[in-house]
Parts: sequence; structure tokens; C-alpha cells
Amino acid sequence: MAAKKKAVVLLSGGLDSATTLAIARQEGFECHALSFDYGQRHKTELVAARRVARSLGAFEHKVATLDMGFIGGSALTDPGLSVPNTPTTGIPITYVPARNTVFLAMALAWAEVLGACELFIGVNAVDYSGYPDCRPAFLQAFEALANLATKAGVEGEGFHIRAPLLHLSKAEIIKVGLGLGVDYRETFSCYAPKEGGRPCGVCDACRLRSKGFADAGLVDPAGV
Amino acid sequence: MAAKKKAVVLLSGGLDSATTLAIARQEGFECHALSFDYGQRHKTELVAARRVARSLGAFEHKVATLDMGFIGGSALTDPGLSVPNTPTTGIPITYVPARNTVFLAMALAWAEVLGACELFIGVNAVDYSGYPDCRPAFLQAFEALANLATKAGVEGEGFHIRAPLLHLSKAEIIKVGLGLGVDYRETFSCYAPKEGGRPCGVCDACRLRSKGFADAGLVDPAGV
Repeated sequence: MAAKKKAVVLLSGGLDSATTLAIARQEGFECHALSFDYGQRHKTELVAARRVARSLGAFEHKVATLDMGFIGGSALTDPGLSVPNTPTTGIPITYVPARNTVFLAMALAWAEVLGACELFIGVNAVDYSGYPDCRPAFLQAFEALANLATKAGVEGEGFHIRAPLLHLSKAEIIKVGLGLGVDYRETFSCYAPKEGGRPCGVCDACRLRSKGFADAGLVDPAGV
Repeated sequence: MAAKKKAVVLLSGGLDSATTLAIARQEGFECHALSFDYGQRHKTELVAARRVARSLGAFEHKVATLDMGFIGGSALTDPGLSVPNTPTTGIPITYVPARNTVFLAMALAWAEVLGACELFIGVNAVDYSGYPDCRPAFLQAFEALANLATKAGVEGEGFHIRAPLLHLSKAEIIKVGLGLGVDYRETFSCYAPKEGGRPCGVCDACRLRSKGFADAGLVDPAGV
């Protein structure tokens, strides 16, 4: 029997990354899920990531510690900055500088050692929050970089960056995930959870999630 | 008086990155030096980095913790793998997967928040150890990525990746550094220090360093 092909899947514990993991599993990959404790105020998402990794059958799940707190500049990692509770224009204050670059770089390092050729990331360019590192051009540039940066890229098969949600709306993502058996009760999307870990219902992430379920004609089972 | 232009300088504490910091200082940059505690066995280099940052007048110096130990696969981070003490062919076992990609990604995140447009890295493509992420094509690809990945790249001035040692031999690097007042006694290059932190004298890093001083007709003041 041929060995199963391996993939590294970035898993935040949110709706998008859970759906991405389900897609990678359905494609037959042995999935190595990777989350980061990067000083985010919404650590509840790491608990969700653990649940999701288990229930969607990830082969293993690692949480890497990444010190991004010294960098500051984002409402997600800097306690001195508030998460907006109404829509803003332009690139929002919840943008964590170069976050997807850092996350994909770590995923690439792990993929190289595992012998995984695919890196899955749950970004999407439709209902995204205006982050520059969620755009197709960014992903293409990272793939080009990955294949120059590594032993496996230079001497081996090379890497593919897979973003299966890229052109889907939030409602479409939810429908795909439900079709693949994702239990969205297990996922967590809020940037600024209340005490006890309940979602705030008003941050960008909560708003996009609510709108996604509403557009799909569904009720969010996490009950936001 | 115009504000001083800012640069983030990756500083390992070795000969190359110290010289790079001296060059960035001479060009008039306010230098924000960045080192990583990534589980490397040669932590002595972090002590050296602190010394070098101070004596070369870095504006500030941060050491970021980065969990790369779970990744394994490199003699620099995996205690189960030995650092070779004779030359090897191909990409060596001391290669840390995607290390420069991860380091530059973190530097980029910090640069974006600082409003720094230049990222300095002390790689060179002449006397390098055969690492794929020390090649010019890699640096160009990272610069392209940086300008797609970030708010500053998309909306602002953009970033430049500066590798002033890229085409210099180790002997040339040493001469440039001496001209700029680098005290190489303060730097540390060894991958596999002996007890008490003394360099082993036989790893790739020690060999390249010795050869550099010998080729420059000099004696290593660190007395390796």
C-alpha cells in the first residue's frame, strides 16, 4: 500500500480553518494540524483547535509558541488596543502584521521535515476582513518563495500552497463544511471573547460568521 | 531635523550579522536588532548578540522566542542529531528548515509596526554552507512577498531586503567589519560549543570563520 500523502494544515480553531481541514482530509491527506499561541487575546480558539483536530481526524496537532507580543501594533496581540465593535474601512486594527507570512513559514519548516508537499491555509478573498495576506497574489508569492527557500523545494518535489476557500463566500464555506461533516459548534471565531469565553457577537469575525450563516439560510449552532 | 530612517537587523551574534549591523549603522539607520531563541544548541550566540548590539550602537535589541524544536530535522535544534566535524556535501544537517524564511517573516512583522522599510540580513552566497535560503533568488522572492503581505507593502513605501554581504567572501567580510570598528572578539560563530561556551573549532561555522581570518592574513581575535 502506498504511503498516504502528507499535508500541513494551519488550524486556528475558527470556521474557515476547520472547513479547510475537512477538505484536506476528504482529499485523502494525512493531516498534520498546526496552531499558534502567538499572544492572541482570544486563546479560546486554541481549545477549539484541539477539539476540531480530533473530531476531523487530524493525524496529529501541534501548538507552537510564537512570541509576537513584542511586535505590538495589533488589537489581537496588544492589550492596549481595542477590538472594534463596528465595521471599519481599510486594513483593520485587528490585522496582525505579517501573520500569515510567519504562520506559513513555520508550516513550511514543519512540512519540509515531515516530507509533506502541501500546505493548507483557510484564507479567503471574498468575505475576508481586508487583510493583505489573504489575497491570491500573496499566496502565489509564498509558493514561489517556498520552492526557493528549502531543500525540498530545490532538490525535491516542491511545495504547493492550497487555499481551497479562496474564492468562496462565508455562506458557501459553511455549506461545503456541513457536507463534509464539520460540526461548527466546535469552532470558535471571535476576536474579543467575553469572560467565560463566549463570543462578543460584534467584532469583525463574529459579524462575518453571523452573516455567513444567515446568507446560507442557517442558524449558527454555536449560538452566537 | 528629519527623523532617522529605521532598519530591522537580524543579529545572530556571529561574525556575519555583526558586520551587517555595522554596515547598517554606517549607512545612518536607526537599527532595531532582532535575535531568536529558537531552541538552538549554541545559545552562547545570544549572549554574543547582546554584546554586539550594545557595542555597535543598536537602538534596541529584542530576543524573540520561537518554538522550532517540535519541527526537528536539524542538528542545530535536535539533540538527537550531531553537528558534523568534517565537511559534508550537499545541504548539510545543520540546515534548519526554512529558518531564514521564518526569521525574515518575524523581522517583517516588526518592521511594519516600527515603520522600518529596510530589513538587513547577513547571508552570503560565496562562503555559505550550502543553505538554499542564503541565495540571491531567495532574497528577491522574499522581498516580492513582503510587499504583497503587508499593509506597508500595499499602502506604503514598501520594503527592501538588504544583504550587504551577499557577494563577499568571508575574508572580505572581515576586512569590511574591521574598517567599521567591529570587535570580532565579541562575536560567536560555533554550532556546537564545548562546555563553558568555547567554540569547537571543527564544525562548518568554525571552519568557515578560521578560513576567513586566514585568507585575510589575520588571526581570529576570539582565539579559535
